[in-house]
Amino acid sequence: MSGLKQGGRADSGACLGAALSTIGELVGDRLSRAEAVRLQHASQLTWMASQPPDAVAFVETTDEVAAIMRICAHHRIPVIPFGAGTSFEGHVNAPYGGLSIDLSRMHSILSVNAEDMDCTIQPGVTRLALNEHLRDTGLFFPIDPGADASLGGMAATRASGTNAVRYGTMKDNVLAMTVVLPSGETVSTGSRARKSSAGYDLTRVFVGSEGTLGIITEMVLRLAPIPEAIVGGICPFPDVRSACDAVIATIQSAIPVARIEFLDELTVHAVNAHSGLDLAETPLLLLEFHGTAASVAEQSQRFGELAEAFGGGPFIWSEKPEERSRLWKARHEAYWACLALRPGARPIPTDVCVPISRLADCVEATKSEIADLGLVAPVVGHVGDGNFHVQPLVDMDNPDEIETVRGFVARLAERAITMGGTCSGEHGIGQEKRRYLEREHGRAALSLMRSIKAAIDPHNLMNPGKMLEPEE
Amino acid sequence: MSGLKQGGRADSGACLGAALSTIGELVGDRLSRAEAVRLQHASQLTWMASQPPDAVAFVETTDEVAAIMRICAHHRIPVIPFGAGTSFEGHVNAPYGGLSIDLSRMHSILSVNAEDMDCTIQPGVTRLALNEHLRDTGLFFPIDPGADASLGGMAATRASGTNAVRYGTMKDNVLAMTVVLPSGETVSTGSRARKSSAGYDLTRVFVGSEGTLGIITEMVLRLAPIPEAIVGGICPFPDVRSACDAVIATIQSAIPVARIEFLDELTVHAVNAHSGLDLAETPLLLLEFHGTAASVAEQSQRFGELAEAFGGGPFIWSEKPEERSRLWKARHEAYWACLALRPGARPIPTDVCVPISRLADCVEATKSEIADLGLVAPVVGHVGDGNFHVQPLVDMDNPDEIETVRGFVARLAERAITMGGTCSGEHGIGQEKRRYLEREHGRAALSLMRSIKAAIDPHNLMNPGKMLEPEE
Repeated sequence: MSGLKQGGRADSGACLGAALSTIGELVGDRLSRAEAVRLQHASQLTWMASQPPDAVAFVETTDEVAAIMRICAHHRIPVIPFGAGTSFEGHVNAPYGGLSIDLSRMHSILSVNAEDMDCTIQPGVTRLALNEHLRDTGLFFPIDPGADASLGGMAATRASGTNAVRYGTMKDNVLAMTVVLPSGETVSTGSRARKSSAGYDLTRVFVGSEGTLGIITEMVLRLAPIPEAIVGGICPFPDVRSACDAVIATIQSAIPVARIEFLDELTVHAVNAHSGLDLAETPLLLLEFHGTAASVAEQSQRFGELAEAFGGGPFIWSEKPEERSRLWKARHEAYWACLALRPGARPIPTDVCVPISRLADCVEATKSEIADLGLVAPVVGHVGDGNFHVQPLVDMDNPDEIETVRGFVARLAERAITMGGTCSGEHGIGQEKRRYLEREHGRAALSLMRSIKAAIDPHNLMNPGKMLEPEE
Repeated sequence: MSGLKQGGRADSGACLGAALSTIGELVGDRLSRAEAVRLQHASQLTWMASQPPDAVAFVETTDEVAAIMRICAHHRIPVIPFGAGTSFEGHVNAPYGGLSIDLSRMHSILSVNAEDMDCTIQPGVTRLALNEHLRDTGLFFPIDPGADASLGGMAATRASGTNAVRYGTMKDNVLAMTVVLPSGETVSTGSRARKSSAGYDLTRVFVGSEGTLGIITEMVLRLAPIPEAIVGGICPFPDVRSACDAVIATIQSAIPVARIEFLDELTVHAVNAHSGLDLAETPLLLLEFHGTAASVAEQSQRFGELAEAFGGGPFIWSEKPEERSRLWKARHEAYWACLALRPGARPIPTDVCVPISRLADCVEATKSEIADLGLVAPVVGHVGDGNFHVQPLVDMDNPDEIETVRGFVARLAERAITMGGTCSGEHGIGQEKRRYLEREHGRAALSLMRSIKAAIDPHNLMNPGKMLEPEE
């Protein structure tokens, strides 16, 4: 297996200058080298240092992206795709400089095919904008990572979120893409057919490729019917294990739960303060059921019985949209709510996923280490998938603490992998998690990934320094 | 993009002899060169000529497959993986000779993790054997292509079948694989976590790769809970369009139908005769609903109302297992039932998939051409996915008729692609459908697929002459 070339980088200022000058002729004042713009396009939601690109191009069409890519390929300039900048793993940083391609102006919804329950969009459309647009069609796009991320970015990181237990992840909901390759060629990865056995699954090659294989410039997304009735509810549990056992029993009982989210007592405490709620400050499950009125009532009742059998409850649920919204808004604001637990500290959200039978073991061991280390680190989880996040609040002026938290995150990744899981359920690898990839996949699989990268991007121009590339 | 080397072939008898002699030392009498065995490992369910391999190795372990692969790689001998031989597209043929690796003895179910709803199996396990084994766990494996195919073969062709509308295809139900690469290296493509964002999606690279990238020797499959209640039913429609409209309305209404199958009047006629049924000989939908007793009753009632609104009905349904079994047995035997429509002729099943809004157009245009050409060609479809099969019965002694049917199949593929669909919904490309691949994907995407192939299998040893390789 061939290795990966080390960091495609702009070898000389001359090359970069020539490339940017040609690109400037193409896009005019939509190319910016202003420092504020460059800084805004570096990663800011992580503990990695911001590494701004040399310039930012605000692109508007696939053809324009292809033309820019050809110029960058000619001059060997690194290219970093940028959606909404909501990545937690440093995906938009430019460790070797180069050009950030900002796709946020490509935000058109090109078509909605209600009969086929799909839509064709540009990658800069955000999930909230899409759902707002779809409101009157009876359809919605179910993938909900919390942040109002761009859908192109969500595809690039194989995002998921609270609805994945019922509706799957981006892997399951992108039917096809248009992608500009590192060569500047444009490919279409599939059709609008719901399924196909015609050739390699190029769509799934690009979903989760973190901008390292090409630039997504158009997507066909699968939509879901807006449920006739929705019930949301809250159920406290005495401890993590009983909550996890109730989750396993729920899923095994074929209750088609749409969302089943875990909040630990510290998160509940923060959410109560932030959102003016008075939830019991114990491990909680937040749930949502989708279906007909009769079916969501039946699902809720059955879940309540199961929860009780595992020592949980009472399960309090409601069909009222305003109560549900309040609850889910609180869940989505947990990230911000938790900031108040340690003012001035930076949150470092991390993300693992394990087989659900190991979830309680993994969360318990992790919380025990949090206590031992004296960290302030709330835990939330998309527990129907075995996926959870720990969000240590770190004093970034304290190098010892940073080292401690790094060690904690490394042991968490190791724990998840040892339990048959993964070091990233939905945030991706980016920069910081590269160190766990060989441990998770083994040398042969990592080498295979690098062969695919080298075949598609032989000069390592696309988002260099991310995912597969060894750490510096 | 680099091209694909032309057909890896055993350049000389000497190489082949040396390779087989070394392999013989390894596996003893599990290597066969007997003509009957070789013929049995060539494709027989298609109009392509049988092209037997030079020898067949009946393998038993991953390590053995890896050792054999290394020998074949050293001598540049083509390798053709063989599961149960149920492919319709010539996948197991050996146009360049070489070694067929028969995985049917690798039929162990290595573990079932009921809490995680997954199992780890060897690739020679068939879907019926797996479901028989799972019976007492409350779980089942939902992918049902009709034939009792090997699960390794089903993964390799990205198979689906009648349950896909609810449970997805093999793409959605393989969590991870062990694969022996053309180099003889063994890779593991994922973990038992339900989802992951850690690196390229190698699992989906191999699902649907038709044995052209490596040999699957182990798989982790996702299982589903056996529904508490199942209802099956039949609904006649006056014509194709009203049936398709009812399907669209059903799916848009979020009725979580588990199966929704179309049979045209000719298929119903054949099935009646074969299975001693007395179904109305009009276009029919066969349905199945999974859920709680209350929910399947509600689903059935709602579907019945919808069907009536589109001129169909009466929808007759039953919860009795024996009645449902009789119905689905009849559906699965449609292939055999249709043989009696023209004794002595060979069935040539073909397979396209279109966006569901175009399904009625595509089926109508196809049936109209069937009538014009005077073909005997029943139509069945997994219509919830927009996927349908036409099965012309061909007099293989009549070259003119063969030409006519080839033209018909080509126009059907073209029609599906023009309507935004695919030339194969679930059977794969194999040999005969290679000619449609560039038309469907475009030159750039096909070239990208070939780059991936060349990166993983630079000497084109794995299943040469299939899928991506230009026709001879």
